[in-house]
Parts: sequence; C-alpha cells; structure tokens
Amino acid sequence: MNHFANPVYGGDYNPEQWPEELWLEDARLMREAGVNLVSLGVFAWSRLEPRPGEYDFDWLDRAMDLLHAHGIGVNLATATASPPPWLSVLHPESLPVRMDGTRDAPGSRQAYCPSSPAFRAAAAALTRCLAERYRAHPALKMWHVGNEYGCHTAACYCEHCAQNFRAWLQTRYANLETLNAAWTTDFWSQRYGDWAHISPPRQAPYMRNPAQVLDWERFSSDNLLACFEAEARIVRAATPDVPVATNFMGFFKPLDYWRWSAHQDLIANDIYPDPTLADSSAEAAMTADLMRSLARGKGWLIMEQVVGQVQWRARNALKRPGQMRLWSYQALARGARGVMFFQWRASKGGAERFHGAMLGHSGTDSRVWREVRDLGQELRGLRLPAPPTADVAILHDWESWWALEGEGHPARLTLMPLLRAWYAPLYARNVLTDFAHPDHDLRRYKAVLVPNLHLLSRAAARNLEEYVAGGGTVLVGAYSGIVDTTNQVHLPGYPGALRQLLGLHIEEFDVLAEAATLHVNTLDGERFQAHTWADVIHLEGAQALARFSDGFAAGQPAVTEHRFGRGRALYIGTQLHAAGLDWALERTLGVAGVDLTPQQPGVECVVAGSGEAQVTFWLNHNPNPVSVRAEGRDVLTRRVVSGTTTLEGYGVLALVSIQKAVAV
Amino acid sequence: MNHFANPVYGGDYNPEQWPEELWLEDARLMREAGVNLVSLGVFAWSRLEPRPGEYDFDWLDRAMDLLHAHGIGVNLATATASPPPWLSVLHPESLPVRMDGTRDAPGSRQAYCPSSPAFRAAAAALTRCLAERYRAHPALKMWHVGNEYGCHTAACYCEHCAQNFRAWLQTRYANLETLNAAWTTDFWSQRYGDWAHISPPRQAPYMRNPAQVLDWERFSSDNLLACFEAEARIVRAATPDVPVATNFMGFFKPLDYWRWSAHQDLIANDIYPDPTLADSSAEAAMTADLMRSLARGKGWLIMEQVVGQVQWRARNALKRPGQMRLWSYQALARGARGVMFFQWRASKGGAERFHGAMLGHSGTDSRVWREVRDLGQELRGLRLPAPPTADVAILHDWESWWALEGEGHPARLTLMPLLRAWYAPLYARNVLTDFAHPDHDLRRYKAVLVPNLHLLSRAAARNLEEYVAGGGTVLVGAYSGIVDTTNQVHLPGYPGALRQLLGLHIEEFDVLAEAATLHVNTLDGERFQAHTWADVIHLEGAQALARFSDGFAAGQPAVTEHRFGRGRALYIGTQLHAAGLDWALERTLGVAGVDLTPQQPGVECVVAGSGEAQVTFWLNHNPNPVSVRAEGRDVLTRRVVSGTTTLEGYGVLALVSIQKAVAV
Amino acid sequence: MNHFANPVYGGDYNPEQWPEELWLEDARLMREAGVNLVSLGVFAWSRLEPRPGEYDFDWLDRAMDLLHAHGIGVNLATATASPPPWLSVLHPESLPVRMDGTRDAPGSRQAYCPSSPAFRAAAAALTRCLAERYRAHPALKMWHVGNEYGCHTAACYCEHCAQNFRAWLQTRYANLETLNAAWTTDFWSQRYGDWAHISPPRQAPYMRNPAQVLDWERFSSDNLLACFEAEARIVRAATPDVPVATNFMGFFKPLDYWRWSAHQDLIANDIYPDPTLADSSAEAAMTADLMRSLARGKGWLIMEQVVGQVQWRARNALKRPGQMRLWSYQALARGARGVMFFQWRASKGGAERFHGAMLGHSGTDSRVWREVRDLGQELRGLRLPAPPTADVAILHDWESWWALEGEGHPARLTLMPLLRAWYAPLYARNVLTDFAHPDHDLRRYKAVLVPNLHLLSRAAARNLEEYVAGGGTVLVGAYSGIVDTTNQVHLPGYPGALRQLLGLHIEEFDVLAEAATLHVNTLDGERFQAHTWADVIHLEGAQALARFSDGFAAGQPAVTEHRFGRGRALYIGTQLHAAGLDWALERTLGVAGVDLTPQQPGVECVVAGSGEAQVTFWLNHNPNPVSVRAEGRDVLTRRVVSGTTTLEGYGVLALVSIQKAVAV
Repeated sequence: MNHFANPVYGGDYNPEQWPEELWLEDARLMREAGVNLVSLGVFAWSRLEPRPGEYDFDWLDRAMDLLHAHGIGVNLATATASPPPWLSVLHPESLPVRMDGTRDAPGSRQAYCPSSPAFRAAAAALTRCLAERYRAHPALKMWHVGNEYGCHTAACYCEHCAQNFRAWLQTRYANLETLNAAWTTDFWSQRYGDWAHISPPRQAPYMRNPAQVLDWERFSSDNLLACFEAEARIVRAATPDVPVATNFMGFFKPLDYWRWSAHQDLIANDIYPDPTLADSSAEAAMTADLMRSLARGKGWLIMEQVVGQVQWRARNALKRPGQMRLWSYQALARGARGVMFFQWRASKGGAERFHGAMLGHSGTDSRVWREVRDLGQELRGLRLPAPPTADVAILHDWESWWALEGEGHPARLTLMPLLRAWYAPLYARNVLTDFAHPDHDLRRYKAVLVPNLHLLSRAAARNLEEYVAGGGTVLVGAYSGIVDTTNQVHLPGYPGALRQLLGLHIEEFDVLAEAATLHVNTLDGERFQAHTWADVIHLEGAQALARFSDGFAAGQPAVTEHRFGRGRALYIGTQLHAAGLDWALERTLGVAGVDLTPQQPGVECVVAGSGEAQVTFWLNHNPNPVSVRAEGRDVLTRRVVSGTTTLEGYGVLALVSIQKAVAV
Repeated sequence: MNHFANPVYGGDYNPEQWPEELWLEDARLMREAGVNLVSLGVFAWSRLEPRPGEYDFDWLDRAMDLLHAHGIGVNLATATASPPPWLSVLHPESLPVRMDGTRDAPGSRQAYCPSSPAFRAAAAALTRCLAERYRAHPALKMWHVGNEYGCHTAACYCEHCAQNFRAWLQTRYANLETLNAAWTTDFWSQRYGDWAHISPPRQAPYMRNPAQVLDWERFSSDNLLACFEAEARIVRAATPDVPVATNFMGFFKPLDYWRWSAHQDLIANDIYPDPTLADSSAEAAMTADLMRSLARGKGWLIMEQVVGQVQWRARNALKRPGQMRLWSYQALARGARGVMFFQWRASKGGAERFHGAMLGHSGTDSRVWREVRDLGQELRGLRLPAPPTADVAILHDWESWWALEGEGHPARLTLMPLLRAWYAPLYARNVLTDFAHPDHDLRRYKAVLVPNLHLLSRAAARNLEEYVAGGGTVLVGAYSGIVDTTNQVHLPGYPGALRQLLGLHIEEFDVLAEAATLHVNTLDGERFQAHTWADVIHLEGAQALARFSDGFAAGQPAVTEHRFGRGRALYIGTQLHAAGLDWALERTLGVAGVDLTPQQPGVECVVAGSGEAQVTFWLNHNPNPVSVRAEGRDVLTRRVVSGTTTLEGYGVLALVSIQKAVAV
Repeated sequence: MNHFANPVYGGDYNPEQWPEELWLEDARLMREAGVNLVSLGVFAWSRLEPRPGEYDFDWLDRAMDLLHAHGIGVNLATATASPPPWLSVLHPESLPVRMDGTRDAPGSRQAYCPSSPAFRAAAAALTRCLAERYRAHPALKMWHVGNEYGCHTAACYCEHCAQNFRAWLQTRYANLETLNAAWTTDFWSQRYGDWAHISPPRQAPYMRNPAQVLDWERFSSDNLLACFEAEARIVRAATPDVPVATNFMGFFKPLDYWRWSAHQDLIANDIYPDPTLADSSAEAAMTADLMRSLARGKGWLIMEQVVGQVQWRARNALKRPGQMRLWSYQALARGARGVMFFQWRASKGGAERFHGAMLGHSGTDSRVWREVRDLGQELRGLRLPAPPTADVAILHDWESWWALEGEGHPARLTLMPLLRAWYAPLYARNVLTDFAHPDHDLRRYKAVLVPNLHLLSRAAARNLEEYVAGGGTVLVGAYSGIVDTTNQVHLPGYPGALRQLLGLHIEEFDVLAEAATLHVNTLDGERFQAHTWADVIHLEGAQALARFSDGFAAGQPAVTEHRFGRGRALYIGTQLHAAGLDWALERTLGVAGVDLTPQQPGVECVVAGSGEAQVTFWLNHNPNPVSVRAEGRDVLTRRVVSGTTTLEGYGVLALVSIQKAVAV
C-alpha cells in the first residue's frame, strides 16, 4: 500500500503561532517550494479547546481552506500530544509520576499520564470533534495521531498506571501462580498473594525484579499504544480511506515498534543525525532500513528532519550545504516515499525557537530556504522506484534490548553500539540490510545476523533453526539466546536456546576490565583484538574458526562454525574490534553468496526498484568530489553518465538504464 | 554618600556561641586588632526568640554595651537569615520546595520559603523588636538585613510562591492575552485561559517555556528583594540615618544586583577567591569593579572574606602569607571603604568549624592573627582616596545572563568564562573597567565592551547606538542582540537589535564540536584560533577586519568594524582564543584612545582619587619580588620611592605625590 | 568460643526457588562436595507467611529433615531481611524514606523502615514461630538473623525514625541544654526548645549540622542493631546453646561493627573482592584481619563469597582457576573457621540470576563445580590451627570514619584509601596486623598505627598515651585527634587530643590542589613525594625526622618523632606517596622491633596456631609459580617440603613441623 503517488514534501505547520496576515505568504511560499503536505495542529490543543469542552475550530477551518486552495494537503493532527494547562489544574492526577514518586509539572510538553482517564477522555473528545468536522475536508490526506509517543515520558509510575499494569498482567498471566513462577518471586521474598499487591517497578533500595521490569517495559509500550489506538479508532471510523499514523523516532528504546507498526497505515519517522559525527550517514541509513523493514510494504516517510541545526544538543552544528538534500535522497533510495521537516516557519518564542526550519529566522534570502525550495522543485513529479530489497537481515527485538540493558548482568552491555558495529562493515560494502524480528519468516535472506539477542524464545530459536536447516547462514554474537521471555535463564547451560543451532556449549563467561583487550588467532592465520567478553566454549559439533590466544579461555574456541542441516551457523564468543568483526562478517556473507565489493569511503550506492523502473542511487557523503564508475541517465539532471564520472561533494546521482523508454 | 570616615575593619561576631566569660577577651583583642565594626546576630534568631513570640535580648544588650565600651561599632543583623526550628514545626509550609517538589528540611541554614506568610510575619516581628530596642544604641552603625539572600535557596517552587508569581505576572502583563503573546503559549499547547492556571516552571518532562523561566528568574530575584525590603522599611523607619544593606556575593546569578543595589545604602560584598587558581586576583579585581559600579557613588565594603582558608570547596588552600593583606588593598584601591571577615572567632562546632577566622583555633600565637592585627593597625587612621574612575565599561545584565544560560540554544554557552576572558587582557594592562547596565548612560566611557548580551531590548540597543553615534567605541561578542525581554527572537534576522549598529546581518550560526577549532586571518596579516561558534555574516555597511580561513563560513567575515555616526562598532562573530581576543580588544581600545601599556605579569596598578588626594596602588600578586618604576611616598611605610624600586612578593605600595602636604 | 569443630563449608540454600523433585539431588551433591552447613530461608518470608498471620512451614520442615538426613547442618534464617509484598500494602509507612523525602517501593530487597512498628511486630512474630518450631530440630546449628543489615537501606528518614532518633537522643543527652551545647545549635540558629522539634538530617539547602549528622549515623547503626537484637533475643531464649549471628560486609561504613560484634556469637562476613584489581588479595587479607579482630576470640566465618563471578559490578570478571581456593585458605590462615558461598544453586530468575553459585547454570560438568567439590573434600577433617596473633594494630573507629567523611573539612578525605595505603606495605612484608578500637587495651602490640583518627576522645587519647608511655610505638597520620565525640574541635589548637603525645602543635593546615605534589626531605637523606595536605607544625618536644622542601610549610617539620615515657610517637603531617609511607612505616616498625623481612610480590605467608599445632600458610597470589624457602609437611598434600620449593600459581602450602606427631 502506498498512499502517495508523488514524493511527499512538506513539514509541520503551526499557523496558530502567527498572525493570520502571514498565512497567505506561508501558502504562497509553500507552493513555491513544492510543498504538498503539511502536518497541522500537532500542539494546538490549548488553542482548539481553550476551556474544557469549549472548542474553537474557526481558525483551523480557515487554515485548512487556505492550504487546500493552494493545493497543499494536510496531515491533520489529533492535537493530543500536549494537553492544555487547564487539564492538569482540573486533574492534577493526569500529570506523569517519575520512578521516584515525584510528579512532573506542565510548562513543557507531553506532561500527561498515559493511563489517566481524564486525559484519555478529553483526548478522545477532541479527536471525535476533529474527525467529525474535517472528515470530508478535501485537504485532509492523512491523520497524525498524537506525536512522538514516549518521548520524554515513556512511562508513568502513578496509581492509574499501576491499575492498568495489573490488568495487563492479568491478561498475560491469567493466574497469579503463573506470574509468581514467571517472575521468580520466591527470590527475595516477592511472592504475591493478591493481584492488588503488584506495583510498577518504582524506585527501590537495590536491583529490581528483572521479569517485573521487563513486563513493565512491555506494558508501558502497550499502554501508550492503547492511547494511539483509542484515537486512531475514532479517525478510522470517520475516514476509512485516510491513512493514519504517528511519528516514530528511529531506534527508540521505550516503544516496541514491531508491535506499533502493525497499527500504522504507513511508517513515519523523525530523524536528527548529528552532523559532527563521522558515522551519521551510516546511522541514517540504518534507521532508514529499520523503517523500510517496519513498513513491510506499507511505505514510509521522513516525517521530521531539520534543514539546518537543532537546538537540543549541547552543541548543534549546521548540516553542510547539500547535506540535507543528500540525506533526503538517501532516505528515498532506501524506500521513503517523501521527506518532511520540523518545521515550516521558525518560531519566534518557545523552547524550540532556535530549532531550524524550512523558513528560518533569516527568511527567504538564505541558503537554507534556497536548499528547501530547490529540493522541493526537484522532487516535484519525480517518480520513485519501489523500495530496494535486501539479501541480508539483522535481527532486532525490543524485548531482548530491554532484557540486555537491565540490571544484574556479567557486564553492562548496550545494544546500539553493537548494532552500529555490525552495520558499519555492511554499509561500507553497500550491502543493503533489512531488520527483522526473530519470529519473522527469514527464508528470503541469504544471511541473517544477530549482533545480540540476549532474550530469545524457544519458538524463535526454532525459527532460526528452520532457516539455517533450509540452507540459510546465520552469524550470532556473544551472550545471545541466554534468557527466555520471562527473563529467566534457559536451563541447562548457555546458550540455552541456541545450543543446538550453534553446536556448542558455553561453560562460563569471563568479563574483562574496561580498557583490557585479548586476542584471537584465526585458523587462516589472522590475529584480531577483542574486548569485554570471553566465553568458555565447548564444541558440540561446531568447529573453531578462531581461538583465544590469551586471557581466561586461552587456547579455546572464540569463533565457531556449525553446519546445521543445509546451512551454517557461526558464532562469536567475544566482542571483536572492527577488523575482526569485518573478517567474521565477510566470511559469513561470503559463505552466503552475498556480493561484497567494497566501496570508496563515504560513497553509498543503493539500487531500488527493478526492471525498467530500477534506479541506482549514488550518494557521496564526502565533502569533496569522488570518481565513480557508473552508467545510465541521471533523472535529476537528465545527464547521461558513462564510465568514470565525477560525483561532487555531498552529490547525488539517480541513474536509470539508458535504454529505458519511460522517464522515472 | 560615604557612611564611614575611616576604613572599616572587622568581621562577623557571634558571641552567642561562646560563654560570656570570653566576651571581654574578644573586645580587648578586637581593639588590639583595630576592629571598628562587627556584624552581630546574623544567625541568632533561635537565641533571640527561643519560643514563638518570646524574645530574649538581654545577652544582646550586654554584647552591644561591651562593644560600645571598647569603641567598636555594630552592624546589627535583623537575624532573619535562618529561622529557628520551631518555625518549621509550627509552619511546615514555610520550608522551601525544590523544582522536583521535594521539600527541604531545617538543620542547615536559609531553610525558608521567601513567600511564606508565616516566615515573613515572624521576620518582621523580630525586626521590629530589634529596631525598637536598639534604635538609639550608640554602638549601632549599620543594619545588616538578612544575609546572603538567595544563597542555597534562590527559588522556592511551593504554592505560596506560585501565588506570588501570579500576582507578579499580573502586575507585569496586566492582561492574560499579553502574557500569552509574550510567552508564545501557542507553542506546545500552553495557552492560559486563567491566571490561576499558571505555575512556577517546575520539573517537567522536557525543556520548559523559556519566557516563563525568564520571568520566574526575575520574580525569584524580586521576591527575595521583597523580603529584604520588608525588613529594611522597618529599620529605616526607626533609624533614618543608619545605613541599611545586605551582603552580596559577587557575580551571583540568581539575584539581579542592579535592581537590588538601588535598595542598598551601601554595597556590601562577600568574596572567597580560590587561592590555588592562577586568575583569582583578576577575579577579585573584576568583582571589586562590579561592586564599585553597583555602588554608583554609595561606597562599598568587603563584608566577608577569609583570612586563611574556607571549608566548602573539595580542597581549600590557605591564602599565602601576605595575600590577605594584598587582596584587602586591592579592594580598597578599587573603591572599597573597608574590609571585614567571616568571622571573628572560629567556631568550635557547626558546619563552618573549619572555616578560617580572625581568631582561629590556634589563637593569637599564629600567623593568621598577626596578619589580622597588623593590617588592622595599618588601616587605622588611613585616609582612603576617592574610588577610581574608569574609561572603559563592560555591559552586564542579569536578565541576559539568565536568557543565555537557559535551554534550547545552538550551543550551551555560559557567561562567566566569557566575562573572564574579556576582562583578563584589560586587567593585564591595568585598564580600569566599570560594569554597566545596557540602559545606563554610557557617555563617560571611551569604550564599551559587550562580551555577550544575548538578550537586548530595542531601547537598550538605541542607547548603545546613541553612545556610538556620539563618538563612542563598542566591541560586541557573538550571539548578542538576539532576543528581546520576552526571550523571543528579534525578527527579522540576527542580530535583531544590533543589526543597524553593527552594520551586518547574520544568516545563520554554525556550532563546532567540543574540541574543534577554526581560524581567522586578520587583514593586518595575523592568524588566530577560534572555537565553538561561527556566524555566517553578510556585511551591511561594516568592513571585515578578519575572515574565517576554514570551517563552515570560510572566506566570510569573522571580525568586523562599522563606522556609525562619530563612533565605531566592532563585532566578533566567533569565540576567539586568548591571543585573538587580545588583538581585538587592543584594537578596540586603541581606536578609543585608552592607554594600553602592558604590565609585568601579576603586577596590578590602580590610581584612585585625584589631585592631591590621588593615590597610586601597586600590588604584586606574585610570590616573588618584582621591580617597578614608581615615584612617590608610600603612605603605608612613609618611605619615599623613586625610580626603580623593589616590590616584595605579595607586596603593596600606596604612593602619594611627594609634594603633597596633607597626609593620606 | 569456637562453635564448629571442623572447617565449616557450605552456602546459602534456597530450596523454595526450586521444585521439590530437585531437593534430593541438592542434598546428594552437597554431601559429595563436603558441605556441612547451609543458610536456609534467608529470603523466604513471603513463602513462610504468604498472607498476614498465615504461616506455611511444611516445606521448610521437609527441607530441614532432608538436610539432616544427609548430615548437613542448618544456619537457619529468621527470614526477615525482606518483608513480603503484603506488608508494604497493609503498612505503606513501613517502606523506607530517602533523605529527599521520596519513599522506596518494594520489588527489590530490604525495603523496610527499621523503625516501623508494623515491620518489627511482623518480624518478631515470624521469628518466634521459627524459634518455637525448630528449637529442637537436630539440623539446627546456627541462627542467621536478618541479612546484611544496612545494605541498600542504611538509614530511613521517616517520622517513625524521627521519633526513635529523638528517644535515642534523650537517652544520650538527658537534657536539651546538653544537646544544644553538643550540637553547637547557636551556630546557624538551630537551638532547640523542644525535643519534638528535632528531626533527622534530611535534605537541606546547604551543609547540615555535623554533630546532628554524626549522631544520626550512630543512631542509624544502633537502630538497625535494635532490629537484630529484637530477633536475636527471641532465638536465644529458645535455643541458648545455638550460636546467633548476622552477616557483616567488611569495611561497611554505615554500621559500627565494634558495637555490633559485641552482640554476635561469632563473626560472619560476606566478601566479594574484584578479581581484576591488583590489590584484591591485600584487601581480602585486610578484611580478614578486621573480622579476626572483631571476633576477639569468638571465631569468624566467611559467610558469603562467590565461586566465579558476581553480577552487580559494571564488569564482573571470573575468579581465575584456583583463586577461590587460594582466597579460602587465606581466610582460614587469618583465623576463619570456615568458608561459605552465596549461593548453592544459581537462580533461574531474579536479580541475581547471573551471580555465581556452587552449582552454576552449567551444572556439575564444570570447572566451578569441580573446584567447589575439591575444596570441600580437601577441607573435610582438616583441623584448623588457632587464629594467628599480631604484633601490630591499626586503629579503626567507625565514628571517626563518619566524622572524617562529613561535610566542611579543609579537604575531602576518605578513609578507605588511607587504610589501604597503610596496610599495603605491612601486607607486602607479611606483617600480620590486627584492627583495634582506640579504647582497647593495646599493650600486647609492639606498634600501633593510626592512618587517621580525625575524631578522638580525650579518654582514647589518654589510652594511647598510656600505651606509649608504657613502651609502645605509635605512628599517627595527618588530621588526627582534631574533634571530640560531638564533632567539635578540641580547643585550643590542633591536634587537640594528641598534642601531648605527639609533642607538637599544628598551627594551620594547607591543602594542595588535586594534582599538586610537594616534597619532604628526611634527615637520613631521602626525598619523598607527598600530596593533598601540609601541616604547619611547631615542635613541642618532638624532633623532625623529615621536613617539607617546598610548599606552604617549606623548611618546617613534615614527619616527627616524640619520645614519650618509655615509648615513641611518630607523626606524618602530610599525605606521603607510597615510597614515603613505606619509609615511615619501616622506621616505625623497626623501632618497635617488628620483623620486616620483605616477601616476593604476591607471596603471602601467615603463621597460625602455636607449638605443635602451628601451621605456616604459604599463599601464592601470582598466576605463575614462585620459589619459596620453606620447611615442613604440607597437610594438604602430605608432601614434605624442604629448602627451596616451587609453589604453583594461585597455590597453597600449609606446613606443619615435620617432627610433629599429630596430623593437622
């Protein structure tokens, strides 16, 4: 399903912050810039309902009409992301409570408890009014439910949330004995005799129950999803054909986007890479791949990016000239159906007054405006190829993320550095990569990578086994397959759920001090540095590809390969530094028959679409020009390219086959 | 107005901590040390009013009488800086509330909510009793209202404060629509429909409204000032001729001392430089200059300094032998009318038992006592010259400070390092500098420096324009003139309020990563390092004095000069490292005709008074002797100095013209 | 008193976490491993009393019977370390309150207020039931009261605690005037007119009253001790002959173990050194010495250690193969009567599922199990020598520790690094060291060391004087003897309580910046680095052994020696780096006639017992073999050793005289 024929282009529009005299200029400039969609009313609740139950939609009517008159579609917000001050005065219990029991105040944004009946009722009432009033408005192209759910207030620890948590637990466990067993409540005298005695995992003297915390993270994601669903149901009932979505935030830990994406008509994402970091383009590519994977055919959008600079880091660099266009095409190449910005016109006041905008404080006589306008004009009428398809998948599971980063492990590991370390060599070789859930059907992938799945159900492990038995190749990172969905250790022995597949048994884990290193020697004569972790491995069918040369497990296997059915399962029982990881991935993907031609540093190449509609995107993330060998017609410049061609700094080529008759 | 004929010398005296048998020794030793003023009763409330409404002044009567009998004047405290335990038990709501809603307990000091009616009533009652009882006491020389207002509890977030805040806002904005506009409440759904819905900017999920926070900082300063005023009114009514003041704390961010100083009969300051820091003497000089500027002719005192070491830093070094005397003369040279210490006799117990004192734990057979006594005897009868007058002013505004250090900027900048960086080259050249508010009449200054005024009203900008148009010279630092008094951006474009004066327009700001540097090349062939910030400048009448040689704005102006009327306005669109800043300041002051003879490192020279009463102070901040070329009679040693003379380590010369007949 | 004839061997056993089918295997394996004691029911409250007042002991009966049937004794817990969820629901006020007023929730462990009447009543009731039921059970060998008192919740700041604190203060001070004097309440207006006005030292605006804080630390230790005593009284009444103890945690700051040890029938300690740290074996030795000293003849046990790795550090390394055995013998050599582990069988879930166990997740086919079993079999029947006796004592006082680490000192000093620095050279020379309280009879020691006793009563100072006058040797570190038991400075002058003994007067303390160093030159021509601190010393009978060569006190004494009576008192008025400290200790012990033969690095030698029962333990803490010159028969291998023999990496020798007839 693809709801938009042409590339979507636009941004958040907050006319309520400006005198109406300016609106006409806004609409005129939007048209000049090729804007075809704006998100409207995201934080307008206090304007739409200035007093409880008294609504004022007149100004919104005029804004919708004006936009429509200028050919601009509207992604209409349910406007519930931040309640007006009166709600928290009438219902102080609607304010969120932190883990330590202190309560947040309004004066910022998202200051609501997701379980609050008062908040939910008021939000539903407003949504109902908006759905009724604008269901037939010709500008309405999409519904924007809430905004960046979980941002700033991912969980509330109040009594209303405690009640919802208990109800959620009763659904999950049915009887208390099952919960007591799942939570190992006989440890530390936590056995419950009554559902009513269960609380959120609030501030406590020491480590909290890991199963309780894991369920709390599941619940908190689901509880916010219920807020989304309550509003989505209302607008879907009113306008069954208008797509409904909220905006995601990339690898955002608090929300299980696998669960959330099932409720979205398309996937919308907000992305703000730090331009001062060397790996920001890889990070953006990785996030785009996640979104394409979450979309699973539904299409996805960059719902928010910034033209120049943000204002929430300690130091906020400007994107370099051309970089915004480059990253926009990167997203389009990786399957996005459009790019949007926060926000249209830079605010004069408020906490985001120094956040960049399409129309900044310097107005139209500015580099930023020119880049915005030029990109909009360039995108107008461009026909996007189908999203690219990947041969490789990285398994990613929010539940395992939560489990890995909980308390009480042999070492404090964090997932994102692992994902980045494994993604980097793939990105450097232009190996397009999907993300997949361990329960997904994996048969279409040549190779499946598991940087870490600390938590893995027996069912998911069987899924992996079937994939490999059928001829697949998998590479698994250390400390995977250790606990089940209750955060209990798969017994007996490690790596419980993966022991058969990997053909080995891990007797114990040694952990190194912060700066310490150890080494592995490969059978093919290479030597690599490793850190943090050393499994003590006993082979049960697998073969050693590399062995530790020092440390606790000196002489014992460090990297292994197991022929399983018609496929192979490789394993890394330590944390390899980049060179070693590169070697392991190259070996895995080589075995799996994945093309591994390395690229020049900073040059990204993505092939999207197929047959006549195939487009090859060349993206130069370097500030300086590079030479690439490419063939085809650039649909952006209509220039024909052949042999070695120069790609300017931050430049883009979108090449179609020269023989092709239909323009892309 | 100068309330004291001779240099004031003394300290805090807390006889209530000691058996009365010791008091006579205290008085005798004070006389030996030349003490002529002591601050009495600062933390004596629980002794003066042991039970609610039951007062005990007998001991204070005896202390006052004894001091008077020994010729020692009293700076009598209203004793309200810390309420007794019973107040917080009777009125738990009088305890201050933190931003997160937790309440502070007693057991320390200053544990009161400034809005608390119970606290205010009890404080006024005690003040009234003291004023009545001692109005005619011959020892009474000065009133010490409260103590170090804002120290530790600069703002309270309780409901009483919320009420006071609302009343303050109603006075400021008159109607709610004005407030909604000033606070941009249409951003993030914060529009208020009722005054009663407004709260202090308490702990919130994310960045708080910057206009609300700014008004909260204004209010919190004013709210404490109201506490001061309530007590000051009472004592002024009783003793119209006795000066009234509280003690300031240098560049203390929470209180707008421009507003506070208008309510002081003289400016009293507490200063505790860290002797281990190389720039402590510059810091002390800068603070002295601020106090002289705040005093605006009223005179000022060091109300507290330490003889040896404090006890509140992680590591508290002793002042070196002679350094206390040196820093005392530094203050006197820069306009102080006396120096006092915390405290007279070192406490045996309590949180400050290891805080140095005039009479330390080692008693009179000690270096510290000898330095105290010798200085007191040296000062006795010394006639101080009039405070020195400056040709240069640095603009300083608390409101801009608060705005700059709020949330949501392109980069997190802090004001004090900027002030120190700009002050250092002036201090190194013995260029005496005032501090001035941007609204002040600046015509008496040859040059005006603006390290940063992020917030600048249009009126203040016009004031600066008039100053420059009339022939003045101004040097402005980056990110100045950006927002107005509501913390809203001056539109269109940067630097809104200063665009005319500086003759340029800033299109955007680039921000560099933490350790990154860039360079500027000056037209006169120099090259300097810069960091943190790079404006993209378009000249609108100004000329480039230096251009960026690398970075985002390579080739574009970095430092500019604009002829405006009969004067010049220079601008630095980056953060120059010391050498570049030195160059820019030298150029600015050179243009303005300020004498720039550099001094030997660590040698400070201040010329105070004029004509026959002129005194030239030479202060050697080095531990080793230096040679200076100086002429005159040293009023401290009565030695005549001519040509090259040796100034000992930490030594002082106070030279008057040899021809002069009257002794200084 | 030694309650156990043979070495104790075992661990925490939590059968309630496992199906009963497994218990028999547990018992069988325990027997195989030589286990003779297990701690049972430590966290079983919620299982023993699933609903208020409804007890279920059937499972515990079966567990006790089964263990007894296998010849395994039980250290039966009162099971009160963590109340069940229902208690906090019925009595929310039983949850502990933090200093900031927020309340902890259950879901972890030890979530109770030690003053809570509801908690105390429920704990006493459960203890009574257990005592009644198992008083005559033949497996009962010891009572385990509570668990790791003070861990995680060392103090609670609720109103119940405030009431207990007031009662405790009334007992200590009898009348309010005494308290006001002791607390110097005239400082900062804190004078109390009513006992009811006194509170715990809760979160306050600034530094809190140091005497109040010190008394609060005393009270908090005593308050938890009252919890212990309440339960101990019950079990003692039921079983007068069964030893009663709780488990200590080494140098655990919150609890005054001198006071606690008087209430223990034997000393039990939990110890978890970090295997990645070079000085962990010294730390373990030091802790063992503390326990032997606390035991004062009662015997002591390692109640908890880990076989492999813990799970609560950021990075948890495994003990190396052999290291667990080595450290076990280290404890036995230093007087332990047995070693136990946390825990028997590794949990499947809960916060400690990755904490090592005797029977880990990998089961019996594992290195860890083999080490556990082999040690158990080795220990079976081994007859331990009497604890070794020391010639040297380090004075250690919890009250002084609290005082030193309070707020408001010339420098923030922490005690443990000082203790470690002084202990290290003793350990390196195999000088066995006791710890002693300053009030103890010290006459049996050749030398007494005082790394720091900031707080020292006049009585304790007299005790030291008597010790030295009688011929003893003492070495005292800087900033000792400064305050009395009310945290008030001993006046006049420093070091108040030690001035006579040390024969000197300290005029003032200089403190150096963080990285700064200074130097001392000794009279015998050596030169050492020092840091942090420099006293200004005036000799009053002492002689300088070393003088500062630079810094504030250049030329003045830095290290001194005073002949006092028949002994000598040495003093170090700075913080010497290792080499200087080594020199000072060597000199002190040399004077005192202590044998100072240095050992090879990492080789520990302890001589325990005497006469025929004397055993010399050689412990090699190096991973590699070393050669030692030793003579005797190794009771572990029955091998006879003579001349130079090789001691394997992490190896142990336990040598008895070859002539000896009776086996050890």
